[in-house]
Amino acid sequence: MASLENIKTPADLRKLDRSELDGIATQLREFVLQSVSRTGGHLSSNLGTVELTIALHYVFNTPDDRIVWDVGHQSYPHKILTGRREQMSTLRQQGGISGFPRRCESEYDAFGTAHSSTSISAVLGMAVASRNAKRDRQHIAVIGDGAMTAGMAFEALNNAGVTPGVNMLVILNDNDMSISPPVGALNRYLARLMSGGFYAAAKNVGRAVLQHVPPMLEFARRVEGHAKGLMSPATLFEELGFNYVGPIDGHDLDALIPTLENLKALGGAQFLHVVTRKGQGYKLAEADPVLYHGPGKFDPSVGIQKPKAPTKQTFTQVFGRWLCDMAQSDARLVGITPAMREGSGMVEFEQRFPARYFDVGIAEQHAVTFAAGLACEGQKPVVAIYSTFLQRAYDQLIHDVALQDLDVTFALDRAGIVGADGATHAGNYDIAYLRCIPNMVVATPSDENEARLLLSTCYQHPGPASVRYPRGSGSGATVSEGLDTVPLGKAVVRRQGGRIAILAFGTLAVAAGKAADALDATLVDMRFVKPLDEALLRELSQSHQAFVTVEEGAVMGGAGSAVLEFFSRERIDRPVLQLGLPDRFIDHGEQAAILAGLGLDAEGMQASIRAHFAEMFNNERAGS
Amino acid sequence: MASLENIKTPADLRKLDRSELDGIATQLREFVLQSVSRTGGHLSSNLGTVELTIALHYVFNTPDDRIVWDVGHQSYPHKILTGRREQMSTLRQQGGISGFPRRCESEYDAFGTAHSSTSISAVLGMAVASRNAKRDRQHIAVIGDGAMTAGMAFEALNNAGVTPGVNMLVILNDNDMSISPPVGALNRYLARLMSGGFYAAAKNVGRAVLQHVPPMLEFARRVEGHAKGLMSPATLFEELGFNYVGPIDGHDLDALIPTLENLKALGGAQFLHVVTRKGQGYKLAEADPVLYHGPGKFDPSVGIQKPKAPTKQTFTQVFGRWLCDMAQSDARLVGITPAMREGSGMVEFEQRFPARYFDVGIAEQHAVTFAAGLACEGQKPVVAIYSTFLQRAYDQLIHDVALQDLDVTFALDRAGIVGADGATHAGNYDIAYLRCIPNMVVATPSDENEARLLLSTCYQHPGPASVRYPRGSGSGATVSEGLDTVPLGKAVVRRQGGRIAILAFGTLAVAAGKAADALDATLVDMRFVKPLDEALLRELSQSHQAFVTVEEGAVMGGAGSAVLEFFSRERIDRPVLQLGLPDRFIDHGEQAAILAGLGLDAEGMQASIRAHFAEMFNNERAGS
Repeated sequence: MASLENIKTPADLRKLDRSELDGIATQLREFVLQSVSRTGGHLSSNLGTVELTIALHYVFNTPDDRIVWDVGHQSYPHKILTGRREQMSTLRQQGGISGFPRRCESEYDAFGTAHSSTSISAVLGMAVASRNAKRDRQHIAVIGDGAMTAGMAFEALNNAGVTPGVNMLVILNDNDMSISPPVGALNRYLARLMSGGFYAAAKNVGRAVLQHVPPMLEFARRVEGHAKGLMSPATLFEELGFNYVGPIDGHDLDALIPTLENLKALGGAQFLHVVTRKGQGYKLAEADPVLYHGPGKFDPSVGIQKPKAPTKQTFTQVFGRWLCDMAQSDARLVGITPAMREGSGMVEFEQRFPARYFDVGIAEQHAVTFAAGLACEGQKPVVAIYSTFLQRAYDQLIHDVALQDLDVTFALDRAGIVGADGATHAGNYDIAYLRCIPNMVVATPSDENEARLLLSTCYQHPGPASVRYPRGSGSGATVSEGLDTVPLGKAVVRRQGGRIAILAFGTLAVAAGKAADALDATLVDMRFVKPLDEALLRELSQSHQAFVTVEEGAVMGGAGSAVLEFFSRERIDRPVLQLGLPDRFIDHGEQAAILAGLGLDAEGMQASIRAHFAEMFNNERAGS
Repeated sequence: MASLENIKTPADLRKLDRSELDGIATQLREFVLQSVSRTGGHLSSNLGTVELTIALHYVFNTPDDRIVWDVGHQSYPHKILTGRREQMSTLRQQGGISGFPRRCESEYDAFGTAHSSTSISAVLGMAVASRNAKRDRQHIAVIGDGAMTAGMAFEALNNAGVTPGVNMLVILNDNDMSISPPVGALNRYLARLMSGGFYAAAKNVGRAVLQHVPPMLEFARRVEGHAKGLMSPATLFEELGFNYVGPIDGHDLDALIPTLENLKALGGAQFLHVVTRKGQGYKLAEADPVLYHGPGKFDPSVGIQKPKAPTKQTFTQVFGRWLCDMAQSDARLVGITPAMREGSGMVEFEQRFPARYFDVGIAEQHAVTFAAGLACEGQKPVVAIYSTFLQRAYDQLIHDVALQDLDVTFALDRAGIVGADGATHAGNYDIAYLRCIPNMVVATPSDENEARLLLSTCYQHPGPASVRYPRGSGSGATVSEGLDTVPLGKAVVRRQGGRIAILAFGTLAVAAGKAADALDATLVDMRFVKPLDEALLRELSQSHQAFVTVEEGAVMGGAGSAVLEFFSRERIDRPVLQLGLPDRFIDHGEQAAILAGLGLDAEGMQASIRAHFAEMFNNERAGS
């Protein structure tokens, strides 16, 4: 039997006989399961793409033919078949391979992905480049049905359908589940396609492509019935200029390989509808693909176990609890998520307030302007969104919310270093990109209880406001029950010290507090980047010789720069040391280790402060 | 005859007999033409919506029923009918009414618009709010076929189609022309809809809605032929969950009014396809709707005349010329525009290099990732985009271009104050939102020749780079012919003075130069915000007591803050005055007047510098 171990590159795979591939699939699925159970990572989606990955590398001439994996968390089988099998044990760990495709990691990773719905645009760009260079190669986007709901995918299809002379194949990996269950009319449409309400397979090229392909479920039989005497309507994808083929069973190599071989021979814009199951082949994941979407380490023989001891609650959970409590107290509250119900902590909210819960699909742009429309009519929308994904709705935040000064609250999860997901998901820029926008409030809670206080405060503020908090948990502060607010734009002095004042924006306040203790510095929990507590800063400048700003965000344009701007405007002549994230993309790894590596733990801060203000400490030593 | 003058609100319109409306339409069209010819503004689109606007306000109970005008530059007839007829003479002028709908301007402006494709999201939000509040009203989005190509519109349709219990009507105003001619598969699809390839009108509710409506062109006749024995396929919009009605003639009140009245009686998600002609009723505009899209003042009896004397070339023209010259010299160059061929100065480029010109439609997200795909394969894409519209592709710029360090050049037109278009189009934030992103180069040319030099420099830089320049022209500098580059991240001292160094980022360098003369200050043309010329700043700090930064962009997080950050990091203790745009949205008006009002002309800068560094000038006076 052919062994997975002997496949160092897809060329090795292509040397195998077709009959040997089923064995490879079995080994590959088992390897994915064992590997992910040891490292953590994405599981369900990768169990779903085993056969598709084998078929693609078997039929196409990778890496010369380009494959772009949309989102990319389903690319583990691809990584394993393209020379990274042994490195899978380092997955998503500092110095190890990424959980997403990366151009710098392998020539087989044609395009780096992680945020959804970029693949068709990228592949169209590649296909045009090959056309212009007269290179005969294929360009393949593998995109899920969830990712297909994002407007960006539609923009790309719309453009591709009229671009002459490009070879591209869009493979819709239809597993009927983005991270949250799918929503939206497109999903309903795809379900109808699968149920045989359409008969695209029999049309034009589709017929030729699918010959000798085994029937999927009851599909072929039904189709025959429909085909008699009825006109065959075009699918949505055909309306957009693609040749639509499918749906076919994405776990059946006897369907995949001949179909792909036939499609390989065709030029132009091809669209293949493949149906897969998330978690395929691992019963526990099939039964609960959401639970097994992105698990930590677990024992595959028993599955994911509930943690025995209650762990610290995460900021996500603090938000979820707050959202329910505030919704209970204010009937105007509505909650919006762009397809991140679990990740944003909205499961309980949906159960308790279904009519006020809106999962709009992977559609950040729409999510924000939809919130603006709700706010116009007196509702109070809370948009729960990761810092990195709000980048997708930046214009809508400016043009539709802030400019109209509408009452929308943004709960920004995963602000700062995100850990294993790495640079693509970095929540490093929101302070800079939000504070330059007029009318925006930017709040940075220092712990879990502050998160609740600032959520309530921003919610009650009658204009646009954002609360940013990191992935995971903070200091473990006890969270109060009520819905109390704090004064907008007012900071709190947590420790009174001498000479140096440390201004902490966010959860690095905890480490900053230890540094303040060691240095006998004043520690201020700034609470708000905007509005800035200028009165307090003015006051502190009279009693302190130097300032340090601390934030888990880009230093460039960040909260520390807001302090610099204020001092500059007021001619307050006090040196400021800005501690925060450097001007480079930061790879995946464990959050605390990354922060320590950047000098953002207590020891690192202390060292930086001593070095930057060496004259103060030298004087101290000389004077003692 | 009913007179337009007597219509102070839509309620007055609704008192008229149907037979009087044609006369109103004639007067309204004439008023729009005369008014725009005197003020400048958008013409073609407003001539195209005269009848639709009358019909909407006649049939629906505005302002309780909500109308959202997508983009909103077609809302002049709406403004005239809703109490702003006399204010039309102040259109787009400082203190006058806006060229777009604004909530603060009228209760009839349900949602502020200007950027494209927001209307369906906003209307869905409003409709959900009404549903939750059990308010029985209608919510109407009027959206052009160009705006419909943006992904955001698709996201909204996809979400609306599955949202229960909402009353909303999407009116597709199909005039087959966004600002540039339409592109994309959707436009082809709409053309097929209009040609009668479909027979949606006869389906379900559509049949009832359209009864008694006069036939459009040959449409009805053809439909009858098709209808015999053929299954009627669903339209794309029906696939997404809407009830599709149309197409109907948008200049025929006999078609519009009964159709809207029928639709008014229906709940749920309705979609009406209306066909209009841009420039309708004014022969010159009908013949060249692009020329009459957004004209300045002109005499309607003779039309727009070519300017007699050649005026100063605009930055847009400088870019257009440079693009052609660089394309001539480098076969790898490809030019990309999201539907702004004219505005971005790409008409000649398209003519000369059609295979390397890509108008991707109103699809900024796709435009940027498409460029990334091209760059992966060795092409050298130049994305021409307004500063304000790059906000739409912020995530793609970060995640797909900067993170992968791909060689994409961004030519950002309309950076800074945009004049008559006002706050919605403000190019005020790009310095702040770009410079916090690793790998990005941010260049700020001070005049037309510098623009060419910096375009060449950024183009040759092998990573992501942006060149920002304002609307209109600059100092009128003679532009060199070649494709010379300048050293990346190096500034130029334009004037050597004493004590104060003015650091100019961009075209305010001209006014800053006058201020420098008056104050005998040093003037530096910084050329780059990022990388910053730190060596020069260090050097200048030794010979100067104080610094002034000047930029046509938000002070918060802007170029001046980059200088502050550097000084802070290096412990360079020199006061800095930041001159730039304040932290508020800035209304429409004439560019130079707005800048002067903000103290950003030479006199204003001088006054600010003297005030901020009063002690230096007081000493001078005391010492003299």
